[in-house]
Amino acid sequence: MSDHETLKPVRGPLHGEDAFALNPEFVQDVVAALEEGRDDYVRDQVLTLHYADAADLIDQLPREPRERLLDLMRPGFNPEILPELDDRIRDEVLERYGYADFASLVAELDSDDAVYLVDQLDEAERAHVLARLPAEERTVIEQGLAFPEYTAGRLMQRELVAVPAYWTVGETIDYLRANASLPEDFYVLFVVDPRHRPQGIVRLSALLRSPRATRLQGLVTEEDMVVMNVTMDQEEVAYLFRQRDLLSSPVVDASGRLVGRITIDDVVDVIDEEAEDDMLKMAKVGEADLYAPAFSTAGRRIRWLAITLLNTILASFVISRFEATLEQIVALAILMPIVAAMGGNAGMQVVTVMVRALATKELGPGNMSRVIGKELAVGAINGVVFAAVLGTVAFLWFGRLDLGIVLSAAMIFNMVWAGMAGTLIPLTLAKMKIDPALAAGPFLTTTTDVLGFFAFLGLATLFLI
Amino acid sequence: MSDHETLKPVRGPLHGEDAFALNPEFVQDVVAALEEGRDDYVRDQVLTLHYADAADLIDQLPREPRERLLDLMRPGFNPEILPELDDRIRDEVLERYGYADFASLVAELDSDDAVYLVDQLDEAERAHVLARLPAEERTVIEQGLAFPEYTAGRLMQRELVAVPAYWTVGETIDYLRANASLPEDFYVLFVVDPRHRPQGIVRLSALLRSPRATRLQGLVTEEDMVVMNVTMDQEEVAYLFRQRDLLSSPVVDASGRLVGRITIDDVVDVIDEEAEDDMLKMAKVGEADLYAPAFSTAGRRIRWLAITLLNTILASFVISRFEATLEQIVALAILMPIVAAMGGNAGMQVVTVMVRALATKELGPGNMSRVIGKELAVGAINGVVFAAVLGTVAFLWFGRLDLGIVLSAAMIFNMVWAGMAGTLIPLTLAKMKIDPALAAGPFLTTTTDVLGFFAFLGLATLFLI
Repeated sequence: MSDHETLKPVRGPLHGEDAFALNPEFVQDVVAALEEGRDDYVRDQVLTLHYADAADLIDQLPREPRERLLDLMRPGFNPEILPELDDRIRDEVLERYGYADFASLVAELDSDDAVYLVDQLDEAERAHVLARLPAEERTVIEQGLAFPEYTAGRLMQRELVAVPAYWTVGETIDYLRANASLPEDFYVLFVVDPRHRPQGIVRLSALLRSPRATRLQGLVTEEDMVVMNVTMDQEEVAYLFRQRDLLSSPVVDASGRLVGRITIDDVVDVIDEEAEDDMLKMAKVGEADLYAPAFSTAGRRIRWLAITLLNTILASFVISRFEATLEQIVALAILMPIVAAMGGNAGMQVVTVMVRALATKELGPGNMSRVIGKELAVGAINGVVFAAVLGTVAFLWFGRLDLGIVLSAAMIFNMVWAGMAGTLIPLTLAKMKIDPALAAGPFLTTTTDVLGFFAFLGLATLFLI
Repeated sequence: MSDHETLKPVRGPLHGEDAFALNPEFVQDVVAALEEGRDDYVRDQVLTLHYADAADLIDQLPREPRERLLDLMRPGFNPEILPELDDRIRDEVLERYGYADFASLVAELDSDDAVYLVDQLDEAERAHVLARLPAEERTVIEQGLAFPEYTAGRLMQRELVAVPAYWTVGETIDYLRANASLPEDFYVLFVVDPRHRPQGIVRLSALLRSPRATRLQGLVTEEDMVVMNVTMDQEEVAYLFRQRDLLSSPVVDASGRLVGRITIDDVVDVIDEEAEDDMLKMAKVGEADLYAPAFSTAGRRIRWLAITLLNTILASFVISRFEATLEQIVALAILMPIVAAMGGNAGMQVVTVMVRALATKELGPGNMSRVIGKELAVGAINGVVFAAVLGTVAFLWFGRLDLGIVLSAAMIFNMVWAGMAGTLIPLTLAKMKIDPALAAGPFLTTTTDVLGFFAFLGLATLFLI
């Protein structure tokens, strides 16, 4: 064993660009200490960690040392670790600590984190945890859970600072100093009317720079305020935060009363999720895939592979219609995968651009037809380029000019088709409210495969036999 | 023409889930007014817009009305619009307004935005704009540009509030009130020692809630502070902000002196870019692709399609080695695309999971071998499932049991290979400091194509002839 008295840096410049990932030596050191039963050493190392580092450590340990670590951490367990854990690992914590202890950890969290955690539980667990929460926290969490998933109501925090517009800077500061029940951290004050409807936002920096006699009215920036409804979709929330460079936004209920605030750090998580989501959806993999056991991952991926299988069997069926042609010219079998693959790849490039443009709302009626026209042109340009290259390759390889020409024609056809289908399929799916990130890829490659084989073998049957 | 006196809402609930995209009616209304020369109406509509909406409008207009709009907006042009514009559209603004006017707009921006804008210009333009900036702004921008691209130095803002730890809350508030040259907006105070090295962070909410006599020392939260070096990669910056839920971080130079701050809103842009980047890179398309002209887009995509072409020609070459076998059993030509496509799709799922896990640093030495083993198991499970299905299909279709068995064996082989190559290729590329998002896909599909065809046709040659 190495010298355990030397503290290993938790995150450190060990691995070039991975300078700030959890230090593997630190992880190994903790594992070794756990195995050797040096409990005090482990507690010293782990209880002083930032909650995010502690969560990373717990996530990365193998199951057995993880369970031992959780037992050791139990007396001083920092509740802020919980929201940072992977879902499956969090379930292990619940199992190990029991409902009562888990509930008392949840009760210490901010309302948005508490709602998030309770929401992740399955129904039976949720009832058990809720039953063990103090009445006040339980009510807040139940109200939060009453909002549909992925809405502003779920995302928001109840804790906020609301003040009337007629207060002066001095009165406001005195109020903040005197009032211990305010949230621990806040970035702006929400100015409300007598019916508790948000009127504007006062930035703390503006408050601090103004004389005590100034009325808040004069400091309100309306431009900064975008009022969000509890039912607003979280994607819209994230979009508005980015669009308007917002820091903290008021959330109102159906009657327009201020009921919560959403802050930029919640939105960062949503942005992360959404971007990850689109990328993982395009490859048809789930977000929990890294930590899930092999059988459940295999089961989840099987659906998409089954679609691929149907797609390729359809393509094989098209090929089989040209059996007689293939028997006469075996060169066709050798060359045919090229047309399909080129069309599929070109089309997926277009689909990716469209999925991103739809997600970031860069695609509007002002530029839609321009984008479609452009992609057709790109398809035609690249079709011609690769038709020339590939036609020459086929001619030199098999010594048949007519084979080269047929291959070139099929290539141009499939590349233009890829440009058209690559734009129209995502747009149509979006209109039909089907997620293009999820469905556009399979549709596209089915058409480029089927039409690629059909165009090439069909033209060959007409002109080469 | 519709009733132009009724104000069209700029963003509104017109399109279901696209409720907050720029309202197409508003855009059309502006275009119509531009065409009819109703300049005052257009100015009324546009000059009151939020800068982000104005930028969206300018981006979405066709070229001719856009130029007319830019002329109309010129007297009161809000410089904050510039960083929000698409790169190509911003170049049009520069062309239209000229270097001197563009420079005076840049001079009004915060230092980080100004550096970003000047950096986007080509070399000749940059020199012209810099030459027309006031000396002070020019120096700040040149210092910013001296930092390598994608580093904290480029991202940071020079404007910040730094105070000594021995000050009281009262002294600090008096200083903030008296000092007009401070940045317009800030979220935290940086506490510095006499050599201007950051010692900690004081949140404005903590400052506001403490009595005037409290010393800043007592309010400093060290946990909140992560000191970043000017040379730190922006991906690391973004990672630390998310990991630690940071709001505003001090940036220091090589000697440890505080030289700037990075705030969460800059980081949101980086997160966006990086996530978009990985997704677009995996499909080998550029981020400016939506607005770029067809020829330049076609040119950019051609490289990746050329790689696809080489890949498929290599696969065709492998197929051609089995020409004699294909001539005897044409069913092989019909079925062979299935094995390659299934392996390619399964492998790309693994690659996507790995690329995300590497980007979010969820993959550490503690779980690496577990992940590889798991993907091999997933490949084996799904290989067996699809081998059974496909073997049966082939047997029923062509009435040959041996053909079904050969197809099944090739399928299992290629699916397991996909699991192995899907994990090892991204990991190896990351070790070699080659971006896996960019290179893993082409490598993977080349191997699944080549080995898929080779396994199927090879086994067929051995056992079916």
